[in-house]
Parts: sequence; C-alpha cells; structure tokens
Amino acid sequence: MPAQREPKVGRRPGNQDTRGQIITAARHAFAAKGFAGTSMRGIASDAGVDAALIHHYFDSKQQLFLATIAMPLELPGFVEQVAAGNRSDLGGRLVRTVLGVWDSELQPSLVAAIRTALTDPVLTRSVAEFFTLEVIGHVLRRDDLPPEEANRRAGLVASQILGLLLGRYVLRLPVLVNRESADLVAEIGPTVQRYIDGHS
Amino acid sequence: MPAQREPKVGRRPGNQDTRGQIITAARHAFAAKGFAGTSMRGIASDAGVDAALIHHYFDSKQQLFLATIAMPLELPGFVEQVAAGNRSDLGGRLVRTVLGVWDSELQPSLVAAIRTALTDPVLTRSVAEFFTLEVIGHVLRRDDLPPEEANRRAGLVASQILGLLLGRYVLRLPVLVNRESADLVAEIGPTVQRYIDGHS
Repeated sequence: MPAQREPKVGRRPGNQDTRGQIITAARHAFAAKGFAGTSMRGIASDAGVDAALIHHYFDSKQQLFLATIAMPLELPGFVEQVAAGNRSDLGGRLVRTVLGVWDSELQPSLVAAIRTALTDPVLTRSVAEFFTLEVIGHVLRRDDLPPEEANRRAGLVASQILGLLLGRYVLRLPVLVNRESADLVAEIGPTVQRYIDGHS
Repeated sequence: MPAQREPKVGRRPGNQDTRGQIITAARHAFAAKGFAGTSMRGIASDAGVDAALIHHYFDSKQQLFLATIAMPLELPGFVEQVAAGNRSDLGGRLVRTVLGVWDSELQPSLVAAIRTALTDPVLTRSVAEFFTLEVIGHVLRRDDLPPEEANRRAGLVASQILGLLLGRYVLRLPVLVNRESADLVAEIGPTVQRYIDGHS
C-alpha cells in the first residue's frame, strides 16, 4: 500500500540509493517475468517505493530495462534519429547509427550487457522481446503493412544487425573489426534497406 | 587416482570410442558449468578415463571445447557439401546447410556451446578464429581473390549468418523462430550470395 511506504519515500526524495534500489528490483523482475510480463507498478512495489517515484527516474519501462542491463542508451533519441529522414536510406541510417553507438565509449558496457544477457536464458528472452518490439518494431512501423509482413521484415533486419554487432564487438572477428564503419554502412546498409522494403 | 583407472584405459588405447566418450562428457560439463568452470580432470572423471589420456587426444581445454562444437558438424563434410555445386547458388546452399544442422537434434548442444563460448572472452577468440578460418574461409576460398578481398567478403557473410543463428536459436526471436527454414533460405540466401560475389 502506498500509504505505508510514504514515509520511506519521503526520507530520500532524490536519493541515488533509490535509483539503485529500483534498478535492482527491476533486474529481478525482468529476469523472473520477462520484459512484457513486468510492470512499472510491480517494480515499484518490489522496490518499496511509490510508483510515481519510478517515473521521476525513468521515463518508461524501456529506459528502466536499459538501465538494468547497464545500457546507458538514449533509446528514444536513437530511434527518432533513425526513423527521421528519407525512407529510401533507412537501412544505411540504421547501420550507421548502430555502429556509431557501438563504436563510442559505450562499447564496453554494451558488450558486457550482451554477454550478461546471453548467459541468462530468461534475461535473453527480455532482451529479445525488447530488441524486436521496441527497436526494430519502431523503425519498421508503417501503417500500410500487415503485422505479419512487418514481422517478417523485422526478423530479416534483426538477423543482419545482430550478426554485425555480434561479429564486430562480441566475437571481435578480425574480418569485421578491421573495417571502417563507413565501409560497413555502404556494404550492409543496402541489405538492410532491401529487408525493410520487403525485397530479398 | 590414476592407478585405479589404468586397466580401463589399457583396454582401449587408441579407441575411437574413447574420444567420443570424452567429447560427450565434455559437452555435458561445458553446458552445465560453462567453460571456465569445467576442468579437464573433471571431464576425464566423468568420461571414466585417465586425465593423461585426454591430453593424448586434445592439447587444451579450448581444443576440446571446439571439438564439442565441431564434431557433430562433421565439419569437412559440411564444408564440402556447401562448396560443391554451382557457385551461383553458394549463398542459398550455405544458409540451407547451416539451418539444417541447427534445426536438427544437435540444436541444444550447439546453443549450449555458443552460450558458453560467448561468456568467456578467451574462448570467444577461439570460436571466432575457428568460425572465420575454418568455415567461412573454406567456403570462400578462391584462387583468384586477393586475401584482403576474401576477408572483406568473409566478414560480410559472417555478419549475416551469425545474426541468423543468434536471433533464431539463441535469442529465439519469435520473428525468426516462427519461419519456415525454406523461406529463410529464399530470403537470406540472396544476401549471402551477393556478399560472396562481392556486391553490396
């Protein structure tokens, strides 16, 4: 009951500990119930804080999830950046933006997050749902596509983007590490564009 | 104690069964305890052979691990199957063969092996080298390609194949799991073919 917890919350309004506590509770909840099965309200309850306080720290469940896997990505900005602009260059823009984020100083924490996620089958499910629904889904969203067709294309896009990330940053295959990102955009962007457009 | 196991070992000195038995025990151990948590001594004990005998077959734990992945693949046969036949359908054949192996009863041990490999950075390097040199390298090998160009194409092929495997079998993205493998061959094969041919 929120009433019982109000004093607790009152004692640490902008406390850094509260944020950590929320992240810890969220990590447990996502691991136990997956991304789709976890609610902000449930996490608040687990963390012993008022639901409104979670929204003080995290705008959305997506942001909170990213924080639990130490992914300090400004996802909404990322998705907007890709989705904005000419539709015919969406593939190149997606590859360029993804490589830009992964080639930045965030790389070690992103790689650590991926390793962690792959180690834990349940967490893997959350990441998979998140990745497909929130990232690829948003980028591909078009009013004129039946859901089944949108899913088909999203799967193909995911298969190419995931492999690029896995090979270049996690497995660190020399044949992908020793490449300029601009060249990878030029070579892999057209593939992603074909998948987005529904051509093979 | 080695002394207790000597008679057992003596009964099968260069036996093919012994090697298979070690690999089976290793596969179970790696899946249960991960790469770092598994010892050669423990595998020997599980397989009911002397620890020294393992070193007769495998120089290192890494080699043994690679054997747990490669053995069920009958790698030389696998590579031949893909490389043989019309060069213009190499991409489709590679995707079809890879999906065939992963959709078989080997799937659980392949997934376990990949999870293990991705968890341990040192082992990751082995798997990466193994994958690039032994699989993609063999498939792409052409006398008329300069090594740098062969590597460029191998990297692109790897990025697509790895992502397909990661998404469909490890992350189990519904958008890739809920697809007929023949359709994936038809949709992703042309991409791989373009990469093999050096087109983007």
